[in-house]
Amino acid sequence: MSKLRFRISVSLDGFVAGPNQSLQEPLGIGGERLHDWVVALEAWRRAHGKEGGEVNESTSVMEGELANIGATIMGRNMFGGHPGPWSDTDPWKGWWGRHPPFHHPVFVLTHHAREPWKAEGGTTFTFVTDGIEAALEQARRAAGGKDVALAGGAQAAQQYLRAGLVDDMQLHLVPVLLGGGERLFDNVGDLHGLTLVDTIATPNVTHLRFARG
Amino acid sequence: MSKLRFRISVSLDGFVAGPNQSLQEPLGIGGERLHDWVVALEAWRRAHGKEGGEVNESTSVMEGELANIGATIMGRNMFGGHPGPWSDTDPWKGWWGRHPPFHHPVFVLTHHAREPWKAEGGTTFTFVTDGIEAALEQARRAAGGKDVALAGGAQAAQQYLRAGLVDDMQLHLVPVLLGGGERLFDNVGDLHGLTLVDTIATPNVTHLRFARG
Repeated sequence: MSKLRFRISVSLDGFVAGPNQSLQEPLGIGGERLHDWVVALEAWRRAHGKEGGEVNESTSVMEGELANIGATIMGRNMFGGHPGPWSDTDPWKGWWGRHPPFHHPVFVLTHHAREPWKAEGGTTFTFVTDGIEAALEQARRAAGGKDVALAGGAQAAQQYLRAGLVDDMQLHLVPVLLGGGERLFDNVGDLHGLTLVDTIATPNVTHLRFARG
Repeated sequence: MSKLRFRISVSLDGFVAGPNQSLQEPLGIGGERLHDWVVALEAWRRAHGKEGGEVNESTSVMEGELANIGATIMGRNMFGGHPGPWSDTDPWKGWWGRHPPFHHPVFVLTHHAREPWKAEGGTTFTFVTDGIEAALEQARRAAGGKDVALAGGAQAAQQYLRAGLVDDMQLHLVPVLLGGGERLFDNVGDLHGLTLVDTIATPNVTHLRFARG
């Protein structure tokens, strides 16, 4: 069966976003420091239609993450926009503009029903209101035998981790302190059968991969 | 000048002790899992007068930690015993029995004055009531040109980190979740000039070393 693969950048003090998240600063204060390592990569820039960038020890990690993914699941907070029901006239369409970098079906966990939104480049956002298991089932079906990526944010990740549904977890541990914000592992309990299977050390980030033992 | 070197084992969710610390469970529930990697080492066992043990990738890290240390600083919580003033008749003498493994002067941060206690094997515990800088000054003098180890716990470490007095920090990141307990990096702010300089990856623990850039 296709795997549910979760990957996320996290600070040394356990935050996946800094304090005071807002529409203007969706990653919170200092939160963009968690992503400096990745936006510098040639592999990431290429996947987002940009030129240039670095090739380093993180390249193979990034390429591995992007490979064999047929669908993505994300939480409402990560998709973004004002909380609550969607606007009838001009509903929020995500952070990614008209050409989102997914190029496959994306399932957004939300309490508020909404018609699917078909972006350019093969990305369709489907809004799932009946819970994480239903979203996973739909995503698996849509992935056509490939794996499903769990993109975050923290609350969606915590729900899947608590339910023991994550098959593979890649933490990108960034050696900075954010001092506040959104914690990844709040109320998760234990690792629900995931164990550390691989570590790749670089000066800017430590890649820790967990899988089912 | 001799360096202040801090090393500590920390869980993936940022705890240095589990929930519900007590005299019976000084590391809190599950907290002993943070130390499984070290008590299994031949280098640690030898330093504590025990035989046997493993030699692995963590051995050189452990030996490096023990080398060139002339004095140790620890917080009252780590030294242990009931909080508040010391007993007049039979004051708490630490967790380590009559032969503590330090074999050098140890300075305990406390609000309650007490005469020094001279244990066997070259360890003398001196109780410092006038703050972290005074303790560091005394420890440096006692270390005779060698470095000073900051042994913990979390609150003592936070005070020294916030004051920018830590020159070298070794985090032993253990891939488990404790779900609660004492957090290492609460209210520390940023890393105060420490940057990641070395990572040693093993299946059971990731050694992350930070130093002044």
